[in-house]
Amino acid sequence: MARRSRNSRPRSAPSGAPPSPYLQRGLSYFDLLDEEQLSRLETQVDWLMQDVGIAFRDDPEALQLWQAAGATLDGDRVRMAADEVRALCATAPSQFTQLARNPQRSVVIGGQNQVFAPIYGAPFVRDLEGGRRYGDMQAFEQLVKLTYLHPHLHHGGFVTCEPCDVPVNKRHLDMLFLHMTCSDKPHLGAITEMSRAQDSVDMAEILFGAEVMDKNCVIMGNVNTNSPLLVDKVVTQAIRTYCARGQGIVVAPFILSGAMGPVSTAASIAQAMAEALMCCAYSQLVRPGAPFVLGNFLSSMSLKSGAPTFGMPEPVLSNYVIGQLARRAGLPLRCGGSLTASKIEDAQAAYESADSMHSTMLAGANFVLHSAGWLEGGLCTGFEKLIMDADRLGGYQKLGHGLDVGDEALARDAYGEVEPGGHFLGTGHTMRNYQTAFYTPDLSDSENVESWEEGGAQDMRQRAHARWKKMLQNYEPPQMDPAKREELAAFVARRKQEMPDAWY
Amino acid sequence: MARRSRNSRPRSAPSGAPPSPYLQRGLSYFDLLDEEQLSRLETQVDWLMQDVGIAFRDDPEALQLWQAAGATLDGDRVRMAADEVRALCATAPSQFTQLARNPQRSVVIGGQNQVFAPIYGAPFVRDLEGGRRYGDMQAFEQLVKLTYLHPHLHHGGFVTCEPCDVPVNKRHLDMLFLHMTCSDKPHLGAITEMSRAQDSVDMAEILFGAEVMDKNCVIMGNVNTNSPLLVDKVVTQAIRTYCARGQGIVVAPFILSGAMGPVSTAASIAQAMAEALMCCAYSQLVRPGAPFVLGNFLSSMSLKSGAPTFGMPEPVLSNYVIGQLARRAGLPLRCGGSLTASKIEDAQAAYESADSMHSTMLAGANFVLHSAGWLEGGLCTGFEKLIMDADRLGGYQKLGHGLDVGDEALARDAYGEVEPGGHFLGTGHTMRNYQTAFYTPDLSDSENVESWEEGGAQDMRQRAHARWKKMLQNYEPPQMDPAKREELAAFVARRKQEMPDAWY
Repeated sequence: MARRSRNSRPRSAPSGAPPSPYLQRGLSYFDLLDEEQLSRLETQVDWLMQDVGIAFRDDPEALQLWQAAGATLDGDRVRMAADEVRALCATAPSQFTQLARNPQRSVVIGGQNQVFAPIYGAPFVRDLEGGRRYGDMQAFEQLVKLTYLHPHLHHGGFVTCEPCDVPVNKRHLDMLFLHMTCSDKPHLGAITEMSRAQDSVDMAEILFGAEVMDKNCVIMGNVNTNSPLLVDKVVTQAIRTYCARGQGIVVAPFILSGAMGPVSTAASIAQAMAEALMCCAYSQLVRPGAPFVLGNFLSSMSLKSGAPTFGMPEPVLSNYVIGQLARRAGLPLRCGGSLTASKIEDAQAAYESADSMHSTMLAGANFVLHSAGWLEGGLCTGFEKLIMDADRLGGYQKLGHGLDVGDEALARDAYGEVEPGGHFLGTGHTMRNYQTAFYTPDLSDSENVESWEEGGAQDMRQRAHARWKKMLQNYEPPQMDPAKREELAAFVARRKQEMPDAWY
Repeated sequence: MARRSRNSRPRSAPSGAPPSPYLQRGLSYFDLLDEEQLSRLETQVDWLMQDVGIAFRDDPEALQLWQAAGATLDGDRVRMAADEVRALCATAPSQFTQLARNPQRSVVIGGQNQVFAPIYGAPFVRDLEGGRRYGDMQAFEQLVKLTYLHPHLHHGGFVTCEPCDVPVNKRHLDMLFLHMTCSDKPHLGAITEMSRAQDSVDMAEILFGAEVMDKNCVIMGNVNTNSPLLVDKVVTQAIRTYCARGQGIVVAPFILSGAMGPVSTAASIAQAMAEALMCCAYSQLVRPGAPFVLGNFLSSMSLKSGAPTFGMPEPVLSNYVIGQLARRAGLPLRCGGSLTASKIEDAQAAYESADSMHSTMLAGANFVLHSAGWLEGGLCTGFEKLIMDADRLGGYQKLGHGLDVGDEALARDAYGEVEPGGHFLGTGHTMRNYQTAFYTPDLSDSENVESWEEGGAQDMRQRAHARWKKMLQNYEPPQMDPAKREELAAFVARRKQEMPDAWY
């Protein structure tokens, strides 16, 4: 990992400053199901929570908390009256702010707001020059910088790729250090083991100070349940570590319908909702008012091989419906992303990512992890894919503002200047509005075929390759208090010394 | 043009039989604007029709009809009270059937139904082997056959590419003959000149018989207005030729916002609506009850070059809103498609096509011209693109059915068979449902990277190339009465003899 030591000198406007730090949505939602259909799903959710129950495994402390709250325990199976679960969930905020160390980059999660973060968790990376390979700390650092630099990514995520060249038990320290120093966007922390979650919270406390942290969410963890109906100690410990300190937690059941849930989209949605609501209730037992994001990750399956598929009609439908259910529950939602099973940045990747992300938008997902860079069902982070997806996010951001039908948008005066069969190019209305009328993406080529051929007949991924290389060449780190930076470096060094290397 | 003479022998099930001849939609619509916002747009539409007016040019017969109906004429500018225009439009059917010569392929246009047709009007074609070139009759015939064979294309369209090797004034005859003999799906007819529209109607009469034609829509024309605010004689003559015979007409204003309409999506939508409603009213003056499809084709513009852009947030928004306005007007809608400005079948093409088509679906477009094969802003038909888009149409068809939340979909019995942390692979519910649970596309590769590499590491367009080649190898023409075929051939031969070649 290359560390820079010159990043403490003051600079002018941050180079990666986004047009806005998150999307404040004006667009309405796509309400796919009607009241009666939603009630049927909610009845199923309630049945799963109070009659079927969810197992909280290998964590006696979690079971004690449930017991104290009046839940019924059968071994590690927890059942609770649905109205009690929902009453607990009601103490979670419907929206909250995650502070960034640069206050201009703080994000609001929940309500009418949408926040885009990159892919999370891929062990492999791929780019046009280097091909497919294991992720390492160099790639990770590049991805953190690209996420910092891209105006349409609001949030850094965390495991933009797995840096496999650093021991498993230590890599989170380097990763946190890079997020905190190479970027000033908000980000997530580690969850794989309780001490790593604690390190994340401790480093955030160094960065923000204990007082700020007492009153604000400055870091969040993101965990998956072990569907079906199982919450293991990784989840409960992460909830305890983050929420006890007043920090946020995202819990996302990952359900491949037919395997971790019934081979039915409706049933899988209800199951995901039940698992996530139980985790939300647990987070509120740990600390009432703790910021909680209701996550959802549903995938369909190839009938040819049983492999997970993405961007298909079933998960698209599930995005829309989970959006409705989350709004009814009054909880911020994480779902969707730019998902694909394709191995490369081809048309398949783009078709699947676009259908997945379009539905994510109309569902109003508040925190969109995996919004850029995802390949191979999440096994691989594509450098070109990251930049291509992020370019499209700018369009979704415009879409998210909705349609203006005010007087200026109706342009009546322009019709006084144009005869039938004429054109509006030179009208006063066009002059006043053309600069903001249309989203013009960087990576879409709309020129004629002759111009495109003269420019080398490049496809989108070749253009994306040139783009991210150039972005990195022009990277300058955001300004930072050198004392904070030293304190963080010292923490990382000390914690690494305390542990032997572990590679599993 | 290769003609087959063996296609009269009876065959078993037609090889290209679609799972259903059109989509019967269960999915709700995305209602983007609220009542007040829609009223604002409708007020603008009314203002354009009654105060600004639409010019009907170079066609005195059209002006006479307007005058007789009580419109106010100012030169060729036609103005009419909006409630009178809307009263005329109310005589057009909200849905109608277009018969196919194979009754199993007849389509219902309007209401809850959606019909997918391929690209229309491209002078160029492109495929991986032959590259980009002018369209010719051989390519046209191949495209007609592929459209016939593909289960997710319901309708043949018409100018799947321009066959530039046949004189302009004669090519429609060969094209109609190929649509009528190589396929038994419904299709459109010519509109570029009144006599060609008449040839189309005459050939349809040969194919279906005068009696059937008297009582049914068996062919339609598709025309563009000359936006802004101009309807030329190509449009009015096509309306007269098709509608006077009780046949259908699609009228689609093509508006590049900023050029043929104000640089505002809202204003362009209202203008398109006003132009199309005036054409609808005209069609109903020609023949009350004539099948009319309200068309819409809005595009945004690149700020870099002024070139039209596709799949961008502005036309996506316009699809949603025009869907609402068309439903309120009670008219079948044509809008959207799988549109892109990309020159090739790359990620750009797919991102743009998917966003365009996703919004087309949620808008409930009833007749989707350009649903497959579109490249280069419509200048080029891609063979691989056709097959790739059509593969995605199968997914949209599944999406269009909506989400089942019935008892079987809730799968309660499956939870009696599975413990927390277990799996649903072998449950009775999975056994009963897995075969129909998920849309499994032909061209998306969802296997792991090793399998994909062993298979040659092909991208989607390479797979699409192999697919369409194989489809054509296995093509067998649908059965046909040899006498009809001879009669059509004789008509074509006679009409060609009556005209000198014309190349413009």
